[in-house]
Amino acid sequence: MANNDFRKQKLWGGRFTGETDPLMHQYNQSLSYDKRLYEADIRGSKAYAQALARIGILDQSEATQIQHGLDKVGQEWSTNSFTIHPQDEDIHTANERRLTEIIGPVAGKLHTGRSRNDQVVTDVRLWLVEQTILVETFLKDLIGVISSRALNEIDVLMPGYTHLQPAQPIRWSHWLCSHAFSFANDLDRLRGLMPRLNKSPLGCGALAGHPFSIDRATLAKDLNFGGVIENSMNGVADRDFIVEWLMWATLTLTHMSRFAEDLIIYSTNEFNFVTAADAYSTGSSIMPQKKNPDSLELLRGKSGRIFGQMTGFLMSLKGLPSTYNKDLQEDKEPLFDCVDSMKSSLQIATGVISTLNIHPEQMHKSLGMDMLATDLADYLVRKGIPFRETHHISGRCVAFAEKNKIQLSDITLDHLQQIDSRFSEDVMQVWNFEASVDRRNAIGGTARSAVEEQIKTLQSLL
Amino acid sequence: MANNDFRKQKLWGGRFTGETDPLMHQYNQSLSYDKRLYEADIRGSKAYAQALARIGILDQSEATQIQHGLDKVGQEWSTNSFTIHPQDEDIHTANERRLTEIIGPVAGKLHTGRSRNDQVVTDVRLWLVEQTILVETFLKDLIGVISSRALNEIDVLMPGYTHLQPAQPIRWSHWLCSHAFSFANDLDRLRGLMPRLNKSPLGCGALAGHPFSIDRATLAKDLNFGGVIENSMNGVADRDFIVEWLMWATLTLTHMSRFAEDLIIYSTNEFNFVTAADAYSTGSSIMPQKKNPDSLELLRGKSGRIFGQMTGFLMSLKGLPSTYNKDLQEDKEPLFDCVDSMKSSLQIATGVISTLNIHPEQMHKSLGMDMLATDLADYLVRKGIPFRETHHISGRCVAFAEKNKIQLSDITLDHLQQIDSRFSEDVMQVWNFEASVDRRNAIGGTARSAVEEQIKTLQSLL
Amino acid sequence: MANNDFRKQKLWGGRFTGETDPLMHQYNQSLSYDKRLYEADIRGSKAYAQALARIGILDQSEATQIQHGLDKVGQEWSTNSFTIHPQDEDIHTANERRLTEIIGPVAGKLHTGRSRNDQVVTDVRLWLVEQTILVETFLKDLIGVISSRALNEIDVLMPGYTHLQPAQPIRWSHWLCSHAFSFANDLDRLRGLMPRLNKSPLGCGALAGHPFSIDRATLAKDLNFGGVIENSMNGVADRDFIVEWLMWATLTLTHMSRFAEDLIIYSTNEFNFVTAADAYSTGSSIMPQKKNPDSLELLRGKSGRIFGQMTGFLMSLKGLPSTYNKDLQEDKEPLFDCVDSMKSSLQIATGVISTLNIHPEQMHKSLGMDMLATDLADYLVRKGIPFRETHHISGRCVAFAEKNKIQLSDITLDHLQQIDSRFSEDVMQVWNFEASVDRRNAIGGTARSAVEEQIKTLQSLL
Amino acid sequence: MANNDFRKQKLWGGRFTGETDPLMHQYNQSLSYDKRLYEADIRGSKAYAQALARIGILDQSEATQIQHGLDKVGQEWSTNSFTIHPQDEDIHTANERRLTEIIGPVAGKLHTGRSRNDQVVTDVRLWLVEQTILVETFLKDLIGVISSRALNEIDVLMPGYTHLQPAQPIRWSHWLCSHAFSFANDLDRLRGLMPRLNKSPLGCGALAGHPFSIDRATLAKDLNFGGVIENSMNGVADRDFIVEWLMWATLTLTHMSRFAEDLIIYSTNEFNFVTAADAYSTGSSIMPQKKNPDSLELLRGKSGRIFGQMTGFLMSLKGLPSTYNKDLQEDKEPLFDCVDSMKSSLQIATGVISTLNIHPEQMHKSLGMDMLATDLADYLVRKGIPFRETHHISGRCVAFAEKNKIQLSDITLDHLQQIDSRFSEDVMQVWNFEASVDRRNAIGGTARSAVEEQIKTLQSLL
Repeated sequence: MANNDFRKQKLWGGRFTGETDPLMHQYNQSLSYDKRLYEADIRGSKAYAQALARIGILDQSEATQIQHGLDKVGQEWSTNSFTIHPQDEDIHTANERRLTEIIGPVAGKLHTGRSRNDQVVTDVRLWLVEQTILVETFLKDLIGVISSRALNEIDVLMPGYTHLQPAQPIRWSHWLCSHAFSFANDLDRLRGLMPRLNKSPLGCGALAGHPFSIDRATLAKDLNFGGVIENSMNGVADRDFIVEWLMWATLTLTHMSRFAEDLIIYSTNEFNFVTAADAYSTGSSIMPQKKNPDSLELLRGKSGRIFGQMTGFLMSLKGLPSTYNKDLQEDKEPLFDCVDSMKSSLQIATGVISTLNIHPEQMHKSLGMDMLATDLADYLVRKGIPFRETHHISGRCVAFAEKNKIQLSDITLDHLQQIDSRFSEDVMQVWNFEASVDRRNAIGGTARSAVEEQIKTLQSLL
Repeated sequence: MANNDFRKQKLWGGRFTGETDPLMHQYNQSLSYDKRLYEADIRGSKAYAQALARIGILDQSEATQIQHGLDKVGQEWSTNSFTIHPQDEDIHTANERRLTEIIGPVAGKLHTGRSRNDQVVTDVRLWLVEQTILVETFLKDLIGVISSRALNEIDVLMPGYTHLQPAQPIRWSHWLCSHAFSFANDLDRLRGLMPRLNKSPLGCGALAGHPFSIDRATLAKDLNFGGVIENSMNGVADRDFIVEWLMWATLTLTHMSRFAEDLIIYSTNEFNFVTAADAYSTGSSIMPQKKNPDSLELLRGKSGRIFGQMTGFLMSLKGLPSTYNKDLQEDKEPLFDCVDSMKSSLQIATGVISTLNIHPEQMHKSLGMDMLATDLADYLVRKGIPFRETHHISGRCVAFAEKNKIQLSDITLDHLQQIDSRFSEDVMQVWNFEASVDRRNAIGGTARSAVEEQIKTLQSLL
Repeated sequence: MANNDFRKQKLWGGRFTGETDPLMHQYNQSLSYDKRLYEADIRGSKAYAQALARIGILDQSEATQIQHGLDKVGQEWSTNSFTIHPQDEDIHTANERRLTEIIGPVAGKLHTGRSRNDQVVTDVRLWLVEQTILVETFLKDLIGVISSRALNEIDVLMPGYTHLQPAQPIRWSHWLCSHAFSFANDLDRLRGLMPRLNKSPLGCGALAGHPFSIDRATLAKDLNFGGVIENSMNGVADRDFIVEWLMWATLTLTHMSRFAEDLIIYSTNEFNFVTAADAYSTGSSIMPQKKNPDSLELLRGKSGRIFGQMTGFLMSLKGLPSTYNKDLQEDKEPLFDCVDSMKSSLQIATGVISTLNIHPEQMHKSLGMDMLATDLADYLVRKGIPFRETHHISGRCVAFAEKNKIQLSDITLDHLQQIDSRFSEDVMQVWNFEASVDRRNAIGGTARSAVEEQIKTLQSLL
Repeated sequence: MANNDFRKQKLWGGRFTGETDPLMHQYNQSLSYDKRLYEADIRGSKAYAQALARIGILDQSEATQIQHGLDKVGQEWSTNSFTIHPQDEDIHTANERRLTEIIGPVAGKLHTGRSRNDQVVTDVRLWLVEQTILVETFLKDLIGVISSRALNEIDVLMPGYTHLQPAQPIRWSHWLCSHAFSFANDLDRLRGLMPRLNKSPLGCGALAGHPFSIDRATLAKDLNFGGVIENSMNGVADRDFIVEWLMWATLTLTHMSRFAEDLIIYSTNEFNFVTAADAYSTGSSIMPQKKNPDSLELLRGKSGRIFGQMTGFLMSLKGLPSTYNKDLQEDKEPLFDCVDSMKSSLQIATGVISTLNIHPEQMHKSLGMDMLATDLADYLVRKGIPFRETHHISGRCVAFAEKNKIQLSDITLDHLQQIDSRFSEDVMQVWNFEASVDRRNAIGGTARSAVEEQIKTLQSLL
């Protein structure tokens, strides 16, 4: 193998004589993955040709010739008929090489004042703007589905947990909304990325700017950018828009991991609150009875994958000297994988939640009277006793019930009054889960009205 | 039961005997670090007392009594006379315990409808809002100092690098601005955090909301929050505002690491472009000649520390069931360390840059005529030759100079014309670094006018 | 010069005037945390004095004088009577300053040929060797406690899960051992760190080695090191031993997070397999009925904290030029926090597991006949039918039971034979959980004999 | 597009009716990347068939039939003629499906007592053992090349730096060895992974072990494993061997990043100590004079990529319930990418270093007499003056030279004696770089003998 020969030749002393180490070509090239930027690259080049025409570097017929040629290159890519040459290092050199073959030497004018340094970030930004819009749609779908369910199933009660221990009764819809609001914040953050992402570095050149007074503002407008990056060195070096996207995705998937975790636990045989649809479950190669919520586990697992892309790229950036360094080539693979993962994960989550089977009776079975102990304390508060004291009284009731192996609600009024004389007959009204959730009618609470308000807010974001 | 025997046998070193493992108390407590939230905790409690009065849980005299008591507790903290009791678990229980000692049982009414779950995030948010404003000031100071220097030293030229290899001449001020724009983006992002950070979770209770119809909106306004969190489970579980802050700090320090890296390299004996002031340098315990730019290295190193806080906390969050879990207690130490580190790092960076000595003559000495090779190609472009061709011609000139061990500018016109006949006498005007930088006068370029524009933009942000 | 004016103008808040920025002193100092190395620093210095005496730099009386002085300094630290001076930058300068005060100028001979660069890593290595031995003890305690429980409670059966769905019956002890083997691997790894950790960098000087031919091997032996680091630049720059320790701790706590996760889920009201002892649980400030497994949640959460220390330090290391850079000062705080966290976490875990209450009857209740579906398929395998076919037959039985809402074991022989004629009367022996677990008697299986073997292996490691 | 239709159908209320969401199939499948395990999967299955024969589940002719069939499947993969079916989820189901097509229903006996849970980790371990051996070879090549250069170029002197500031003169070979020792430690660590990696989980079944008393030890031996994993739940859940490998690679590439950083800085025009061979450099699309050390930058950047794989996978693991969860499917892509990256990075590094051009005269030019200031202090130490004092005297000499703008070595004896009377004529012998490096002849120092010793040690490891 060439590669092995190479290694044999080059034990130090016997110098490496060939032009390029073939492995180095492989190590250095990016075309295998950056070819997915072909459309953005061509779009950017077409606009750039027009901008060169505006300052007289090209006459209009040259510009048109180049633009038609670029269209042709783009068609080759989109029809899978573009032939990659071994010397094509990246999408930029590949496209220019092919353009030259099609239209001849005038193609050589296109790169005037431009460097791959500004070209590549222009491409990535153009591509990412489009993807962001798509991802926003998928995220809105998810929020939409969750809030639709929340509206339909608003009457279903379930235990609310802290520390995964039974805490207070809640509405199933309240739980749904609690996650939807995390995703709503993700939506807000995603939209917030756009102004910084959608800025044009084109015209920054290699690092020092453009030597032919190109009109960067008009060029940016032609490409639907919202503005230009205002320092050329910053323009070629800055990868913040990628870091921000990776950070955004990491936090969104961290939310997803918590959402999935809840659902995985609720899917256990012991909880049995929900069952993932068959379409999102799989069986076992050995255990015939199995139906596993693989989709939810994959969603949870992806939070690691994307977190890794984010941390890895930050590590690559750390301590780099300014402007372009080849280390920056490590930006595209994590970004591409992250965007792909987000698109599929959001769609899978939407599918899972929209088809999820819920078991309201099992949820209800898990509601224990103990979960109304706070309501019992609150009952006494309403009689004017300080909460800290009522908390202790209620605690004694819980202990009494536990000791006597009865439900909290089964303590007789007599016994309650032995614990504290201020209990009176109306205490029995405490033992009502519906009343309990509806009592929490302040903003953000579990009352029907409060949950409906939440759903309205969520839907207003879509 | 075997299990109890097990415990009695005290296989675990015979140490554990009492009701609570003392090590567990230590492992579980947070007062040692969350006491710095004392002011926010008291502020929150005072407003909460008022809100309870508004709904009749307290009468106004009780509310006033509580508020005066809280003021007294706050004074004890601020005068270092608060005595911590062994059973004080966290700042919330410590403050309530002390309040009870001061004002008696009425203190027990304060916690009505409130849980430590909503209380603690209220405190952290109140504290962080204040800190964010302070950090913003420090960041603006840094940008201000950099842009002031950029204005003062606009005539200084230096080599611009890509891949740390000489690329094109630039202004020292252009380099300064390139980093300032990164920090300006950080400023933009920091301001963008505020709307989500400055929201009130108070009134969310343990997880299910408030059972006494508290007016969360007014309560939030009393505490200068911009709004309320709209789902109670989300309110107690959400730590996004901390993650976002850690992410913000990580990216800002990644910029700092690149800024410091440049300056460390420019400080080497071989570059010798800059020297850190004595105030930010240190010597060696063994080598008498040493003066090391420790400040810059520490700034670079902090990027790791804060990155670690960010990644660590995300790991703690991953896969948590919803609402409050004790894992969330791992939020405060990284946040506190991060905020402290940001405040000192921004101030140190400002100090370093404001006192930095620069050596313009050394920068100039590093400018090689090779760095005008692109200008040579551009010269031919102006004569109508396609750039791709002029790039090759200029490349042949570079090779000629290298082979003959002369400067690029020392190639005679004769020799240039042998390489390409289209060279004419005006080519000698290429060999001018000032002209080169001023030619790049498009937005974001190195021309004096373009750099002045950048400085103006930067200063408009402050 | 513009630059100096700049400085005089004190754009930086007018604060900085003196020779050193006081904030820089704070930013640069390490004494506040590296003072815990005092004992190691003194031990190293005493041995170093002896080594200097061996090569004639000190005469023996000077060496003795220095050693006695160092003992005195150490006593001051250990009795909390060491007075820190404002100019003490780190433990090394503090100790040398104090030594000079005690014994006079001869103290100035101690640092001959030594630099803080080799001194500090010597100290950290000495300290960490000791801590590692301690941590090993705590880890063995944990494995010991788990395996003791496993032996005592070997008869308790519980459901085994994959994907958190019921899979096959197992022994509780088998579950315990599955985690113990992860910790046993951690123990193996911890021991594997020692040879690289326990090497001496002392005598490497600032970076270039020792100019007075010190006998590094004997010096190392005096300090109980197992060898010396063989390149001086490597000796002062290498922080692998810290990275390795942080990585070790990260993986160990990742195991802990999985262990805790299982137990938290098993502690839910819905599973109710185990209850953490009161000593490791806490209540709620608002909900009287609550008892939360805080200890387990804290153990799970610590996995993030330490992971953050590991990743943060790696980030600080990335791309550093060789030998000592001040960035390396970021090594100690994460290491100290990591070691402290490991010591307390291992002890807490040991406490939790040694006092945990288990509920065998609840575990048994969760065993469903479905979990014997594989055994049903295996039953047919024993009759010579290919497993892939028996898997389908058993699957049909599961579906039949589900459709008819009966237990798998309640399908009559008639019905079974309708599904597949090869079922015969002996099929009823399948419905026996004890038999099922005991059938898995290959190495590592759930049979009593196989579990006993595991326990024996575990205990042999301690 | 099917996918869009799907989304349209399933807005909640309109249930998803199809059998499987096609996107879920894509999200869930692993064949696209785990097919590279085909050889290991077939090897494992062949051995497993033999083990089943040993316990009578298969008769020998069935075992032979299966093994021949598996060979045929393997040939299809290796000749690229294996046809993937849409329903093939992973390499295991693909291989079993194809085997069944080739040999008929007897193929259905192969999976008896085996689960994909134990099968997949067996495959990954088998594959990784082989790759580890290969990586070890590449790593030894690298250490070999570095140490060969070190031996050949032992006479070349260069400045040694701390904080990137000139510190003391060293040998170029000493610098080379300093990095080689880091890689030697990596070699040591890599070898240390093997015992834990090379253990067999086969026979662990789904989680509970093997129901037909398979002889796991012999089976392991047949596959060249060094032992078996001793708890079946641990066997299917444990991914430590992957984490350890990712951690190993991360630390190795962190070393690489420091190695590359030094070389990138030494490659600058200002240092000009080394130049990467053309084979490992690239030019610019715009600047004709450029030759950039891309290979070194890529090596530095990869440290981020692999760090990201490591951190991401740890995040995926954190908090997982025990045994197999689908999240574990996230193990293979990072591992595969990591192994590939390590193989190419080690080879590239070997190529770069073996072809690197060094410029000894430039290195020598960078040696300043200041770098002998410690030697000057040491000179006085030899006259019996305490080092702390000689350090100050030498410091005054440095200040004198600086003030008078002369070299340290140009201070006349008169002036020296004015600074300190104990200087005598022999002080002039201090000004000798060769003597300085050779004076450091303790183990690990810069003396020729000490460096030769280092090289010998390094070469003994290969």
